[in-house]
Amino acid sequence: MRNIKLTIEYDGKRYLGWQRLGDSDKTIQGKIEAIITQMTGEKIEIIGSGRTDAGTHARGQVANFKTNTTLSREEILDFMNRYLPQDIVVKKVEEMPERFHARYNCIGKQYSYYIWNNPIPSAFERHRSFHVPQELDIDKMNLACEKLLGKHDFMGFSALKKTKKSTVRTIEELSIQREGSLLHVTFVGDGFLHKMVRIITGTLVEIGAGKMEIDEIDAIFESKVRQHAGETVPAQGLFLDEVFYK
Amino acid sequence: MRNIKLTIEYDGKRYLGWQRLGDSDKTIQGKIEAIITQMTGEKIEIIGSGRTDAGTHARGQVANFKTNTTLSREEILDFMNRYLPQDIVVKKVEEMPERFHARYNCIGKQYSYYIWNNPIPSAFERHRSFHVPQELDIDKMNLACEKLLGKHDFMGFSALKKTKKSTVRTIEELSIQREGSLLHVTFVGDGFLHKMVRIITGTLVEIGAGKMEIDEIDAIFESKVRQHAGETVPAQGLFLDEVFYK
Repeated sequence: MRNIKLTIEYDGKRYLGWQRLGDSDKTIQGKIEAIITQMTGEKIEIIGSGRTDAGTHARGQVANFKTNTTLSREEILDFMNRYLPQDIVVKKVEEMPERFHARYNCIGKQYSYYIWNNPIPSAFERHRSFHVPQELDIDKMNLACEKLLGKHDFMGFSALKKTKKSTVRTIEELSIQREGSLLHVTFVGDGFLHKMVRIITGTLVEIGAGKMEIDEIDAIFESKVRQHAGETVPAQGLFLDEVFYK
Repeated sequence: MRNIKLTIEYDGKRYLGWQRLGDSDKTIQGKIEAIITQMTGEKIEIIGSGRTDAGTHARGQVANFKTNTTLSREEILDFMNRYLPQDIVVKKVEEMPERFHARYNCIGKQYSYYIWNNPIPSAFERHRSFHVPQELDIDKMNLACEKLLGKHDFMGFSALKKTKKSTVRTIEELSIQREGSLLHVTFVGDGFLHKMVRIITGTLVEIGAGKMEIDEIDAIFESKVRQHAGETVPAQGLFLDEVFYK
């Protein structure tokens, strides 16, 4: 059987997130599986690198599926982009060894979060950023980013309830660039817990707004109490940029 | 009476264009006038710098209106942005001399048109660009731009039927920059005829794709026959960036 890897871009606004819920086609996974079944005649389940929440976007989500289709990679790409809704786009189709697994083989991810930091809202950025009207101290936020770098137990920065699985993750890169009124927060790490990117961003915003101190980050690492961290910023500012494999 | 100047940004996707059609509130002008009436209690008509077509966007449309309200500029800005739909934003409120007229006093405009030039469509740019999958010769397009610069009768590059008014306009700047897969066409001129920016862009695309020759531009200047020019590219790629006054 062939093992096909897809690199997928989507505007998450209309969807309940990546993961199929029953037969709902209000999910990205559901939409893509329906098209592949239409294309191959096979009942196929695709494996994503991980879930994305309702409203979250992706520039480079990765998924794989097994198929007996004889269609070429180009034919698969063309068919899918012709029949998928316009807010889901297949950017790349690759032939992989049989053992490739989009979730198990993932060694890291890059996310971006965008903040529209201007007293005046934006008519154009509102679907892909979080509006913060008050001034933010970017230097202070970048100092906070340094504290979050490296290997930590991020339980307190996640929406997870008690879990037996490890909540230790390593953030290799975390920084904030200002591009005019748009703040671009970049996250690179070996993995991210549920809502971790949005809770860390919310914490950075509170630090930048002077509502939280940088040292409180250490306290959250110790207490692991999510309520001590910042608000979960909205999904529409979040983009899964890239999924890394060996 | 006070004369208030508004600088307005809007995502034109949901609207029938700038100009109010009867009492329709599917127009930008209609939406804004309704809010101003709500704010001031006065039945007000606003004067725009000019119309924008259905689906066209603006980063810096300008309009003015006369009012007796005692609200401060800040109060006007805050009220309007609180009650306008999120896809219309007032960026600036200014107090003008009584004789200021957004249309009569306009001495020029800048427009941008965006082309997504990649075989793969974009899930994010599709509402603010025109998708051209085939390769385009940007150098050739920029040579064509030079031919269009300056003072010409642009009748053949407009959607106008016979008219007694002058169709001579001056284009001071016309150039194309490539920003990754996005082509950004910039127009600056003393005025633009109906659909002129979209027809010129369509002509540039056909030249870039090798379907038209640069010299055909001269022929269109002479014949003034719109059918000899390129297709009208879709409204969603067009932005009114700025309106110039003395």
